[in-house]
Amino acid sequence: MEIRNKEYTLKNCKFVVNYDEVLENVNIVIQEDGYIKTIGRESEGDEIDCSNYVAIPGLVNAHTHTPMISLRGYYDDAELNEWLQKMWEYEKTFTLDAMNISSELAIIEMLSKGTTAFIDMYFNPDGVKSLAEKYGIRAYAGYTFLDDLFEPYEIDKKQRLLKQSELFRPVVNVHSVYSASLRTLELAKQLAEEMNTWIHIHVSETRKEIYEIKKKYGKFPVELLNELNMAQNSQMVHLGWVASWELNYVRHATHCPTSNMKLATAGFFPFKELLTKGVNVTIGTDGPASNNSLDMFREMKNAVLLQRHSYWDVEIKAHHVFKASTEEGYKLIGIKGGRIEEGYVADIVLLEKDNLYPLKKDRILSNIAYNAVGEHVRKVIVNGKLVYDEEKHKELFRKRRKELLELLDNIIP
Amino acid sequence: MEIRNKEYTLKNCKFVVNYDEVLENVNIVIQEDGYIKTIGRESEGDEIDCSNYVAIPGLVNAHTHTPMISLRGYYDDAELNEWLQKMWEYEKTFTLDAMNISSELAIIEMLSKGTTAFIDMYFNPDGVKSLAEKYGIRAYAGYTFLDDLFEPYEIDKKQRLLKQSELFRPVVNVHSVYSASLRTLELAKQLAEEMNTWIHIHVSETRKEIYEIKKKYGKFPVELLNELNMAQNSQMVHLGWVASWELNYVRHATHCPTSNMKLATAGFFPFKELLTKGVNVTIGTDGPASNNSLDMFREMKNAVLLQRHSYWDVEIKAHHVFKASTEEGYKLIGIKGGRIEEGYVADIVLLEKDNLYPLKKDRILSNIAYNAVGEHVRKVIVNGKLVYDEEKHKELFRKRRKELLELLDNIIP
Repeated sequence: MEIRNKEYTLKNCKFVVNYDEVLENVNIVIQEDGYIKTIGRESEGDEIDCSNYVAIPGLVNAHTHTPMISLRGYYDDAELNEWLQKMWEYEKTFTLDAMNISSELAIIEMLSKGTTAFIDMYFNPDGVKSLAEKYGIRAYAGYTFLDDLFEPYEIDKKQRLLKQSELFRPVVNVHSVYSASLRTLELAKQLAEEMNTWIHIHVSETRKEIYEIKKKYGKFPVELLNELNMAQNSQMVHLGWVASWELNYVRHATHCPTSNMKLATAGFFPFKELLTKGVNVTIGTDGPASNNSLDMFREMKNAVLLQRHSYWDVEIKAHHVFKASTEEGYKLIGIKGGRIEEGYVADIVLLEKDNLYPLKKDRILSNIAYNAVGEHVRKVIVNGKLVYDEEKHKELFRKRRKELLELLDNIIP
Repeated sequence: MEIRNKEYTLKNCKFVVNYDEVLENVNIVIQEDGYIKTIGRESEGDEIDCSNYVAIPGLVNAHTHTPMISLRGYYDDAELNEWLQKMWEYEKTFTLDAMNISSELAIIEMLSKGTTAFIDMYFNPDGVKSLAEKYGIRAYAGYTFLDDLFEPYEIDKKQRLLKQSELFRPVVNVHSVYSASLRTLELAKQLAEEMNTWIHIHVSETRKEIYEIKKKYGKFPVELLNELNMAQNSQMVHLGWVASWELNYVRHATHCPTSNMKLATAGFFPFKELLTKGVNVTIGTDGPASNNSLDMFREMKNAVLLQRHSYWDVEIKAHHVFKASTEEGYKLIGIKGGRIEEGYVADIVLLEKDNLYPLKKDRILSNIAYNAVGEHVRKVIVNGKLVYDEEKHKELFRKRRKELLELLDNIIP
């Protein structure tokens, strides 16, 4: 059904799932301003029958490179360093148009699979901003400091022109400590402070990085960021090779288990230790050229699997990765969301309940984390607006995807 | 469309994918006897337009426990030994009816996700046999030797009554070396020889198993099976803790990466080493209570991921896991299948090409292994028969699933 009124109700949700609580057969009333008014028996305005759906908070893909969907399946069988060289080689010829077409493909895919917000590291933040407003997804993006490819002052200059909008906010992307000079790192730090945002950076991803940074600076990567007073304001992605004594410097950590495994970076992301220290831990798919999926359900499962395999125990459970993908994701982006609760923003995903069998209250979180895939998503609400409704958008998205792929046809390898 | 004639053609398949070769825009002619007649431009009998599909060989789920779909999401956060106790506790009360209802649920799920054959370890092989014939999926099952739960001579007696049918063949299931006495193992060996089948057994899954068997018998588990002359005829499942010197005794190995990771059994499945030795290596999801998915596409990807993470290299690639799930699967079950090629049995899965973008000949195998999920399957052919056609069966399967779940409602925990 169309939502005609401003206030409306998700009626009779089979389950409403937060990481720490499951409610059964309740209504969610969504206010004009996009926030959740009540959870319970109340009903206001138009009603969407949700008796066939399980409602979960929107998923935050905390680290990706959307334009790399063009390179999905292009070069899958190399370790990180060789792979990166291959990507950079192609990226030198990647036009802004092609990047934006690719980001649109990725956004269509992510949104229809339940991602309501994503953090993007690439070179087309203006395009991403327009697309975020077009599709109604929350996007965090910026130009990326990467000395081999771009003059840092150029990045700085362009970045300063980026403006926040309803669904978009600039972040300061730094590829890594090893691909940026100290001067570049200093520039990024200043920029993040002045733009009142955070630094989004790959850190301690490989043994090689640890070795090289230690050799060059006498310090490990996180130690270096701390020394430069950048650690507190950094979202550190990967951290497979972070040292135990560096954990005190980490405020925001993002785990990309699939990409780490696929690129054979090995290491241990210290999920449990970081939680114990109260660190904000989130999950990302990484780019579609290294994962190659953008499905946050698959990523949640893989995060549990990798932890259990690495630590030989079952300390990390479904609720941890569900929290990391919802509440902790929203904490990172600074929005009161990631929970379906009064006063939280209405970023909500509706899953078809029939796929989550045996459908039981005490199994629902497990069945979402360990068996669901993005294909089970039927509706997505961001900021109170129904931005994806399978019935309405599936065919539209399919058509648009076809057009976009045709545009890319002659320009991707 | 309906297939009215006996010979028919999958017309204009966008791609036909074997592990070592991809063909574009070709027809597959399927003979009356269920075998592939030609691949190319020929066309015979009715035609199914496959221009929107990518054809792959059917997937073999080489190890599962179908009835455990009832326990999906029931107890997800324990290591193997605690988990097994919990499962066994429930299984003591699991009625044959409930097992068969559960197997039917699992078969509906597997078939619609592209699995054309599976090897089942449980206690309801007669039910599985009927279901295999009902749904048109290939099934390999038997009673399971497990001394704590069943008197081995009873198992032996019941097993001897199992008869092969068109799509069903008995296998001799032994839970493990640690849950069977030497007398039971001897019984299983005899039985497999007399029934002209193989032994399907969990081996070297945990450190604990290695330790206990070494302590009890002075040998490692695979060494023990070799000493008992059982190794050659055994399909050894898990092998995360197999020792290097035991590899010479392995003929058939099955990897279940997701279950191993989820149950935190750690270890290293020596995929590459086994291939080097010419061992028949296959892949299984394990049961839906430990995985919790039955999706062989997800399992292929996880097999690559775990190998790369464990060995810190990218030696295992998409084509290895694709071969393990197709050609090697058919080799294990003794059928000339697992390839889309003249003279091979027509067990074929058609995937919607629109989900496999960017759709390119040299990326298609990657895009299947690293990004496809069972939800992309549109049609499944087994033995030349169209046994799953989304258009026709999706709604039928949904209804049947609902009925089955209602039957289980009061009997599962």
